Amino acid sequence: MSTLTGVGVSPGVGVGPAYVLAYEATVPAPDSRHGGDAAAELAGAGRALERVAADLEERGARAGGEAGEILGAQAMMARDPGLADGVARLVEAGTAAARAVYEAFGHYRDLLAAAGGYLGERVSDLDDVRDRVVAVIEGRTLPGVPTGTGRPYVLVARDLAPADTALLSPDVVAAFVTEQGGPTSHTAILARAMGVPAVVACPGATSITPGTPVLVDGASGLVRPAPSDDEVLAARGAAAAREAVLASASGPGATADGHAVPLLANIGGPRDVAAALEHGAEGVGLYRTEFLFLDRAEAPSAKEQEAAYLEVLDAFPGGRVIVRTLDAGADKPLAFLPPGAYEPNPALGERGARLFRTHPEIMGTQLAALASAASRSSARLQVMAPMVATAEEAAWFADACEAAGLPSAGVMIEIPSAALRASDLAVRADFFSIGTNDLAQYTLAADRQLGALTDLQDAWQPALLDLVALAVAGAAERGRPCGACGEAAADPALACVLVGLGVTSLSMSAPALPVVRAALSRHTRQQCHLAAAAARAAASPEDARAEARSHLPGLAGLAL
Amino acid sequence: MSTLTGVGVSPGVGVGPAYVLAYEATVPAPDSRHGGDAAAELAGAGRALERVAADLEERGARAGGEAGEILGAQAMMARDPGLADGVARLVEAGTAAARAVYEAFGHYRDLLAAAGGYLGERVSDLDDVRDRVVAVIEGRTLPGVPTGTGRPYVLVARDLAPADTALLSPDVVAAFVTEQGGPTSHTAILARAMGVPAVVACPGATSITPGTPVLVDGASGLVRPAPSDDEVLAARGAAAAREAVLASASGPGATADGHAVPLLANIGGPRDVAAALEHGAEGVGLYRTEFLFLDRAEAPSAKEQEAAYLEVLDAFPGGRVIVRTLDAGADKPLAFLPPGAYEPNPALGERGARLFRTHPEIMGTQLAALASAASRSSARLQVMAPMVATAEEAAWFADACEAAGLPSAGVMIEIPSAALRASDLAVRADFFSIGTNDLAQYTLAADRQLGALTDLQDAWQPALLDLVALAVAGAAERGRPCGACGEAAADPALACVLVGLGVTSLSMSAPALPVVRAALSRHTRQQCHLAAAAARAAASPEDARAEARSHLPGLAGLAL
Repeated sequence: MSTLTGVGVSPGVGVGPAYVLAYEATVPAPDSRHGGDAAAELAGAGRALERVAADLEERGARAGGEAGEILGAQAMMARDPGLADGVARLVEAGTAAARAVYEAFGHYRDLLAAAGGYLGERVSDLDDVRDRVVAVIEGRTLPGVPTGTGRPYVLVARDLAPADTALLSPDVVAAFVTEQGGPTSHTAILARAMGVPAVVACPGATSITPGTPVLVDGASGLVRPAPSDDEVLAARGAAAAREAVLASASGPGATADGHAVPLLANIGGPRDVAAALEHGAEGVGLYRTEFLFLDRAEAPSAKEQEAAYLEVLDAFPGGRVIVRTLDAGADKPLAFLPPGAYEPNPALGERGARLFRTHPEIMGTQLAALASAASRSSARLQVMAPMVATAEEAAWFADACEAAGLPSAGVMIEIPSAALRASDLAVRADFFSIGTNDLAQYTLAADRQLGALTDLQDAWQPALLDLVALAVAGAAERGRPCGACGEAAADPALACVLVGLGVTSLSMSAPALPVVRAALSRHTRQQCHLAAAAARAAASPEDARAEARSHLPGLAGLAL
Repeated sequence: MSTLTGVGVSPGVGVGPAYVLAYEATVPAPDSRHGGDAAAELAGAGRALERVAADLEERGARAGGEAGEILGAQAMMARDPGLADGVARLVEAGTAAARAVYEAFGHYRDLLAAAGGYLGERVSDLDDVRDRVVAVIEGRTLPGVPTGTGRPYVLVARDLAPADTALLSPDVVAAFVTEQGGPTSHTAILARAMGVPAVVACPGATSITPGTPVLVDGASGLVRPAPSDDEVLAARGAAAAREAVLASASGPGATADGHAVPLLANIGGPRDVAAALEHGAEGVGLYRTEFLFLDRAEAPSAKEQEAAYLEVLDAFPGGRVIVRTLDAGADKPLAFLPPGAYEPNPALGERGARLFRTHPEIMGTQLAALASAASRSSARLQVMAPMVATAEEAAWFADACEAAGLPSAGVMIEIPSAALRASDLAVRADFFSIGTNDLAQYTLAADRQLGALTDLQDAWQPALLDLVALAVAGAAERGRPCGACGEAAADPALACVLVGLGVTSLSMSAPALPVVRAALSRHTRQQCHLAAAAARAAASPEDARAEARSHLPGLAGLAL
């Protein structure tokens, strides 16, 4: 099999046997009948349903967070009493258990699918449960990702849901390869957070024969099945050389001519602090607080929140910690709030700071907890709101922070209007942080979750660079700093371009910090300016990348 | 009851008895049992299900188009065999028919709702069917909008779906008032297209007692229950005075100092040509072609398409007709294409020109049909693509038009990146047309369909005006014209601002043409420039509107 090419989204070289995740479920034959003992057959079906439910539930509990919630919902599907009724009726009429389960699920499935005229997301969750139950009845192995030890494998799939990857770690997975997904997909973000090489948008990947050794280069995007020893050695050598160069850069982020660019970490909770410190983060540029809220029957108390904030603040004495207030909404519903109105496009809905319009008490509690934590720590706490579109919203948030006694209130720039009107927002916002992932999504009107639109989600799209430049200029007009905390900051070439555009700090997944630190240290601020101007003068992301790189000769030494 | 205030989205004065559309369905008591004759009870339930299915189907067939498709899907729900089974089991166990229907639907409903953790759009469709069936069984009137003659009524509702309004006409409805929705909601667009006054985002409207006379002023947004005769006379007098002023402006669109601004019509098919001509349209600025494709088992032939295009071209001999190629996608699926991948945010998905990436044959046939129609007409045909984000996509579309022998290929500017990079797009695009509705949706990341975010969807948002200015400047750099065809062009003050920003033509629903023509004729180009500059200097939509109006004194004479 020849070499495949995709988009490298998490650098490093990984080698291991291919584990191809394929839910190619067998369909029980339409005329399959049981031997006559309906009671025994039905008991078997019931055991299979319960075993799958328990398995999903147990894995969900171990994973926690959003993944845990998804798995919990699937467990509920397996335990649906109406479904059990349907299975019972069919088995009593003579249908074999596997077929009865298939048909009973099929009825719900048809309803879901027909209701919308096309398949919905929950249909694939439902199918996953069905296929697991059928597999158990037929005595086949449950579909799923092995989480045991043994030799780390290369996980190959069409796409990966949080549920698939909930329990993985670098000990288990040598690399990720998916046919779908883009640089801002869940797979890419997770891989970078884990420090595992990953290639996405790689057509043909699932045709790799399971068990075949695969070499994955997460920097170049190459996926080589059955590599020769020389090829593995060469790739590992290049990666090792790169590691050595990275190790040589340390200390605070700065360009070659000494222009300071603080390098900060994106974290999802106190558990990510160790990695941030290990990779030399100068502070936290994005502390996502959703983990406190998402799998809860009741809102977390101010006291509980304060402890979680303080744990992070205390890890950076004298340093900076930027906390983003809760970014929930229809796509990340909160169990303790009544379900909101149905939103046909949740990404364009009442999410982020917009949710606080109807639930100001949640914001109030969070801001109070933050203020209390700040008063007990030497770290410099800054608070920012997600999904702010207008100056009015920025002022509303700043008022709330002021009332809570918080000294510094900023906003994310992740909506085009906020970038265009940064100067208006800066009247009340003390600082900005550009979220390049969502900003790209809205600027190009291309869903981050759709592999088919990967070309449009490219952070090198010149229109996105224009908005970054406009946001920075608007902030500078009123003397406000403007950082970046999207995945673009983790691309060393793009990080140099962002600095050239005037971005004042960069925040990223901790494992990306060393390479960005090295890239910055090898270029002057002027080189960054020239690279940025060249990128903006281009008419396509490919040209922008190439033009920028022509001004960034130091990247070659990093094997980038 | 005191006067209510909402947002006037379709001008004019309407008076009539309130018809309050409230699906306040009764819930059959949980313990309701039938008398013992299960067979008779079941037959009644079956008749009710079929009556509702037939009614929905018949209304869908009369409405056609998208509304017809929605109603057809609802009819299918009422005829679902699994549902009938569920009802039968319950009735056989003694449950009364109404309760059995309620519970059988409830089971599906719970599944749909629980699957996502919150209610889905199809849940409301399902509820609507359920409530209709329960009403029939209980001998109550079917919920729905009267379409008979008699005195035109003021239709008041929380919100209106296309299905509610599928069969309405100005003979039936004197005005629309909704509690939800915004200026670009379906209600607003439909009302303007029908020439019926409408007020949206009007809290408390459904508390109006049904049958109460209501005065609706679609220009000011006032809704007055039980008005005095004097109030009705005064409102009608002001509206009549306005009409008289409007009638005095005629001929091609131009500013007071003679700067020509062609005024064009947005049409949805040949049936809209008469209204366009009646209101003095100088051509067609947006010919939506979806009507040819949406309710079809097979794609329309080139011959059939050609006839539909030619019918419009022939209505404007020597004039301009801008046809937009098919704008379908996950939110407007095509029956003759396999369902695409599930899209969590269809507005950010593979819609518009993006659909042609995977289905180039549909575009090829449409362009060939357009070229053939153009060769047989004296009208000047221009073709444009929806949902173009990048220069690469614009070039791809221009290549396809050139190959088809079409002389003029343009693109819609409805994605922020297209506005930001208009100069790059203009290398190959011959002209632009700004779609302000979608452009606002993406620029503010606020779904057009969500009433809760109406403030963000305001076309006066300064960020939106910035993008219009950037698009016009990019177009002008390469000598390309840049029109506007979103609903913003139908707001007379905003139309003046768009001209001040450099927009070269305005296209709108035909009934809005006279007032825009009058507004332009009362202001110089310089006044428009000043109004535009003042609007852009503001930091909020309210200030932008007020500042612009201070430079547009002629609007007062139009009672605007």
